[in-house]
Amino acid sequence: MSHNSFGHLFRVTTFGESHGPALGCVVDGCPPLIPLEAAEIQAELDRRRPGQSRFTTQRQEPDAVRILSGVFSDDRTGGRQLTTGTPIALMIENVDQRSKDYSEIRDSYRPGHADFTYEAKYGIRDYRGGGRSSARETAARVAAGAIARKVLPGITIRGALVQLGPHRIDRARFDWDEVGRNPFFCPDPVAAAEWAGILDAVRKQGSSLGAVIEVVAEGVPAGLGAPIYGKLDADLASAMMSINAVKGVEIGDGFAAAALRGEENADEMRPGNAGAPHFLANHAGGILGGISSGQPVVCRFAVKPTSSILTPRASVTRDNRATDVVTKGRHDPCVGIRAVPVGEAMMACVLADHYLRHRAQVGSNAAFQPG
Amino acid sequence: MSHNSFGHLFRVTTFGESHGPALGCVVDGCPPLIPLEAAEIQAELDRRRPGQSRFTTQRQEPDAVRILSGVFSDDRTGGRQLTTGTPIALMIENVDQRSKDYSEIRDSYRPGHADFTYEAKYGIRDYRGGGRSSARETAARVAAGAIARKVLPGITIRGALVQLGPHRIDRARFDWDEVGRNPFFCPDPVAAAEWAGILDAVRKQGSSLGAVIEVVAEGVPAGLGAPIYGKLDADLASAMMSINAVKGVEIGDGFAAAALRGEENADEMRPGNAGAPHFLANHAGGILGGISSGQPVVCRFAVKPTSSILTPRASVTRDNRATDVVTKGRHDPCVGIRAVPVGEAMMACVLADHYLRHRAQVGSNAAFQPG
Amino acid sequence: MSHNSFGHLFRVTTFGESHGPALGCVVDGCPPLIPLEAAEIQAELDRRRPGQSRFTTQRQEPDAVRILSGVFSDDRTGGRQLTTGTPIALMIENVDQRSKDYSEIRDSYRPGHADFTYEAKYGIRDYRGGGRSSARETAARVAAGAIARKVLPGITIRGALVQLGPHRIDRARFDWDEVGRNPFFCPDPVAAAEWAGILDAVRKQGSSLGAVIEVVAEGVPAGLGAPIYGKLDADLASAMMSINAVKGVEIGDGFAAAALRGEENADEMRPGNAGAPHFLANHAGGILGGISSGQPVVCRFAVKPTSSILTPRASVTRDNRATDVVTKGRHDPCVGIRAVPVGEAMMACVLADHYLRHRAQVGSNAAFQPG
Amino acid sequence: MSHNSFGHLFRVTTFGESHGPALGCVVDGCPPLIPLEAAEIQAELDRRRPGQSRFTTQRQEPDAVRILSGVFSDDRTGGRQLTTGTPIALMIENVDQRSKDYSEIRDSYRPGHADFTYEAKYGIRDYRGGGRSSARETAARVAAGAIARKVLPGITIRGALVQLGPHRIDRARFDWDEVGRNPFFCPDPVAAAEWAGILDAVRKQGSSLGAVIEVVAEGVPAGLGAPIYGKLDADLASAMMSINAVKGVEIGDGFAAAALRGEENADEMRPGNAGAPHFLANHAGGILGGISSGQPVVCRFAVKPTSSILTPRASVTRDNRATDVVTKGRHDPCVGIRAVPVGEAMMACVLADHYLRHRAQVGSNAAFQPG
Repeated sequence: MSHNSFGHLFRVTTFGESHGPALGCVVDGCPPLIPLEAAEIQAELDRRRPGQSRFTTQRQEPDAVRILSGVFSDDRTGGRQLTTGTPIALMIENVDQRSKDYSEIRDSYRPGHADFTYEAKYGIRDYRGGGRSSARETAARVAAGAIARKVLPGITIRGALVQLGPHRIDRARFDWDEVGRNPFFCPDPVAAAEWAGILDAVRKQGSSLGAVIEVVAEGVPAGLGAPIYGKLDADLASAMMSINAVKGVEIGDGFAAAALRGEENADEMRPGNAGAPHFLANHAGGILGGISSGQPVVCRFAVKPTSSILTPRASVTRDNRATDVVTKGRHDPCVGIRAVPVGEAMMACVLADHYLRHRAQVGSNAAFQPG
Repeated sequence: MSHNSFGHLFRVTTFGESHGPALGCVVDGCPPLIPLEAAEIQAELDRRRPGQSRFTTQRQEPDAVRILSGVFSDDRTGGRQLTTGTPIALMIENVDQRSKDYSEIRDSYRPGHADFTYEAKYGIRDYRGGGRSSARETAARVAAGAIARKVLPGITIRGALVQLGPHRIDRARFDWDEVGRNPFFCPDPVAAAEWAGILDAVRKQGSSLGAVIEVVAEGVPAGLGAPIYGKLDADLASAMMSINAVKGVEIGDGFAAAALRGEENADEMRPGNAGAPHFLANHAGGILGGISSGQPVVCRFAVKPTSSILTPRASVTRDNRATDVVTKGRHDPCVGIRAVPVGEAMMACVLADHYLRHRAQVGSNAAFQPG
Repeated sequence: MSHNSFGHLFRVTTFGESHGPALGCVVDGCPPLIPLEAAEIQAELDRRRPGQSRFTTQRQEPDAVRILSGVFSDDRTGGRQLTTGTPIALMIENVDQRSKDYSEIRDSYRPGHADFTYEAKYGIRDYRGGGRSSARETAARVAAGAIARKVLPGITIRGALVQLGPHRIDRARFDWDEVGRNPFFCPDPVAAAEWAGILDAVRKQGSSLGAVIEVVAEGVPAGLGAPIYGKLDADLASAMMSINAVKGVEIGDGFAAAALRGEENADEMRPGNAGAPHFLANHAGGILGGISSGQPVVCRFAVKPTSSILTPRASVTRDNRATDVVTKGRHDPCVGIRAVPVGEAMMACVLADHYLRHRAQVGSNAAFQPG
Repeated sequence: MSHNSFGHLFRVTTFGESHGPALGCVVDGCPPLIPLEAAEIQAELDRRRPGQSRFTTQRQEPDAVRILSGVFSDDRTGGRQLTTGTPIALMIENVDQRSKDYSEIRDSYRPGHADFTYEAKYGIRDYRGGGRSSARETAARVAAGAIARKVLPGITIRGALVQLGPHRIDRARFDWDEVGRNPFFCPDPVAAAEWAGILDAVRKQGSSLGAVIEVVAEGVPAGLGAPIYGKLDADLASAMMSINAVKGVEIGDGFAAAALRGEENADEMRPGNAGAPHFLANHAGGILGGISSGQPVVCRFAVKPTSSILTPRASVTRDNRATDVVTKGRHDPCVGIRAVPVGEAMMACVLADHYLRHRAQVGSNAAFQPG
């Protein structure tokens, strides 16, 4: 058991605080002989990197990743850097800490934050930037996710912001290509344009908004998932809920499924290619009985509005006196935006883990091969 | 890693199929010296037991539990049966199997069920009653949950059905005492009366409905939860999502939090008793940064409508030919009803696990003591 | 983490006390589609069963095993019973308990036994027959080992008693065929004849002897083992040391290797068949760097003399008063004898686990396939 | 499951290769509020550091450790650096790699080394200095062990070399104070003087010697250990066997116990202080039934002679042709010497893990408190 690890066979252990010298992770169990360059990891980190638009925190962190172990190249590998099967350690140094910004919350608890609960649990907390509870930790997840994607050739994992505050996208306009064209990872160009104005106003008011993120994995073969307590959806639920500020997770129709009748919800089947059924709908989100069905795996999660806001909130001090807290520092007006690549990374890691779990128990009858 | 286990320090491993000789579980890591009688476990099982009203399956299973190990009594214990710290094995024999009911689905996949995915994964499935994928497995969870409750004196864990199909309770009428007075675990007496008619009609049509269950734990001390990947909410999400037919999990305001602004969502605090803050609201559902805050822990999960229905559905056979499936057998018109005690059991097991995890790393500064 | 489980992917959880209603295990992670009959498990249990000669305890336990879950047969399987990939629960009911034999040790600690330490740890102990600390628990290991053997076709795992008390076999007379012909699992017919007289005398004196067991696995392909902390030899060391009364474990030359020089110890190689090296010696016991080399895996472990003896020993009572303890009950004069099939079972389980671990990370390049 | 982690609640994950940029570890689960300075870790690393005498490798590595996370200090901590309960990442940069020394073994397998088995398992290996299989990895263990010692105040853990090649110390001269006065960690001053000449001769011959190390933990309270598969001795066996070149592990009398009779081996007891028994002997090495008895925990392990020797040995190339291998590079003539602080570190980590496991299941009735 490790509090700071997830996955069983593709196992990720992260470390580091927001204002410490460095953060990073160790990825253990990665198959050998997979080509892996730091630049591939960096490309994913750059999608999550702060300071790229006015809609994310202005902290300037290059998030430059360094591979400390687990890869090898020589003339036998044709100069390509390959994984060796040993643990891959990744390190990202923190550069732009402004710890003094946080001195005011040294002795007060920011409402909605983990300040009080860390202090209650451990009797000590690194208050600088939220310490270990900062969303900065998710950089390590994105780095690990970049490796997970290499374990899963043929699988496409994409995420999008489908709701900003109360404002939802129009599903009829959903376009994956649009996601990379706006600072919100929004798949609806009309919504993206509207959201810019909405979030600008919220930001100037010193307030914040929540969001809903949808992550879809296509190309997942049928058979991944390990019932009863390693169900693919259960592991996705845990993975997504572990992301900072997430308060809800859905698979497929999710909560809307509760309002359906049995006839509507049961995805009908007709004979398909290669001996597998063709599904006529995907209310199930690609998972039945905790095992992938071969359809796209669809997961959504809700992110609460950033708790760090400029509006004063009633709170208490460490010695239990009343105070008002205004969070200065540099913050995202909607942490949900940068949660999009994080959600993708978690999906990738969970699928890589389940691919290896499947291969262990059943062998190689899943449709793809890593490496 | 174990596919059929959950929890780390209060660890539950379940086994058994719907129509096999028996099902059960092994609970490992339970503290010693806790009084435990089979009757206490039986009382919880009886709440989940089928055949108690016309709104659940008519399969008649006494679900009589037998403790095979892990307890001891003699005159030194004053005749009380106490846990010894060794694994507690529980067994429930299956009595009322009617396997021939299922011969029709031997070679066809029921839409919405795990039939296809188990076959795709393992190349074999016990089709009788759904085999391992049957909700019958949840009896073992309820039995384990009864032990977990004994580890957590002072904590009250209660569940209720707050939505049946599209019909929600009126929150203003929420009354925990009402839950035990109707066959739906419904906390709203008006809704309960209406639901009886609604579900009768659905049942007679051979259809089914989904549901939303809410589970609340009161008396949880601040400090339980192990960030980053053993967060209390992440473990709850996994636990609830692992229950049959669950498609979504929320903590506190859940998906509704996405539509709030930062000022609304951040639960303000004022100085409280015993040096701990008094929270003015509980949008967070009692968990901040993955650690309990001392407020009630609030979790909701959505259950899809029962996939076993009498309405014919398009499907395929094992050899990929078109067929129509009608599920006979005996089924719950709303599996969400009996999911209420299951959700309570999962909450109890997760909290017991986190209590022991907390005690390991931090010692005994949590507010309660088992035994 | 589970105190009563071992293995990661072929995972065994045992339960039960010596004088409780039953003992057994749950085997999780077993691949599907492997033929498995209760009779195959029974055959292994019968090799370990007590009361088969005057050199083992006279307790009469049929050790009849019952498979509660995880297998399935119908006409599609040709009537053969196959594993389904779900957990396999096995139960053995206790039949011949004579708990009153142990009332004298209710309040005293038998020297060399776990009586004192269980009481010190848990504050309670099931003293009847040693409760959970009894070697009776090893029946569950042997049952699990029988399944593990089925996962590993082509591997031969055999054990032998190579030392009884101070008396060693003559290596020149080592004959595996001899092992089944005497009540000691002794591979040396001359030694076996001598040991009968020696152990008879010891038994009549109410004393006991220790032993050394050697277990050899042949047909293990190169590549099994997961460095650094899942080394094959480290897992074997843990598995063997967990057997009751074991005080030492060796791989290959073991402690004798410390006295060798580098030239002697390094097993030289010459080109072999199928592209693999041919080793000229096997000082390493088939494991290099924690990974199998393709040579026979050789493991030895030392069992201390049975602590339950008729000679009075100085001890204390639970309330810390001086007493003398004589252990009546029914006991093995040398517990090492019945440890032979237990050691084989642990070897089988460890290898099965590592076969699945290897298949997860590296794929199917190991030489054998289960099922 | 993690191949490169050990411990359950005090969990250590190591990474790094001999000639990569850095090695290190993440320690997860450490209790909060424990004072911890890098200098304390450095002091332990310096005991294991190479190049300190002519009897160890001449590679010059400062082994300077850097704490990347998990600690915090401010004026509230009185300037002391305290653990926070979050993962502690430690990094040691490699400085003195001479990778070209190893180009000769790029395509050949050194007998007795892991060269062949890594290649057979992974299809790739970092041959420079042995890559991941190098004993250089043990620096990370020693660093983790320094933290483990801080978790266990009142416990004294000491190791000594008790046998060099075939040469054993005289037990009558055993003196812990002597261990720090000679380059062998030898507790016998007469033996230490003799060993200098012996090892000089071996070194000049380009040969190597094995060794036996004894590690003793004093002050361990009764009750640590988690039967059946988390026994304290089983975990020690795994921990010690995982150290490079170890081929055998013993607890207490170990293999010698097999030659004793029951009367000799059962450590008798008499009433002791504080309600606990006083043991008249310690054949058991402080562990009964897998649980500590309160006596000193005694563990020995055998290290084979260094496989890297200057004497040519028959071997094969990667393409299965005959060759002779002479290992140049810089090597320890007896790797057992530097295994002494490594063995101590493993003992410390195992005990810290079991202390936390005990505290989880049973609470705080063990005799010491961390922090």
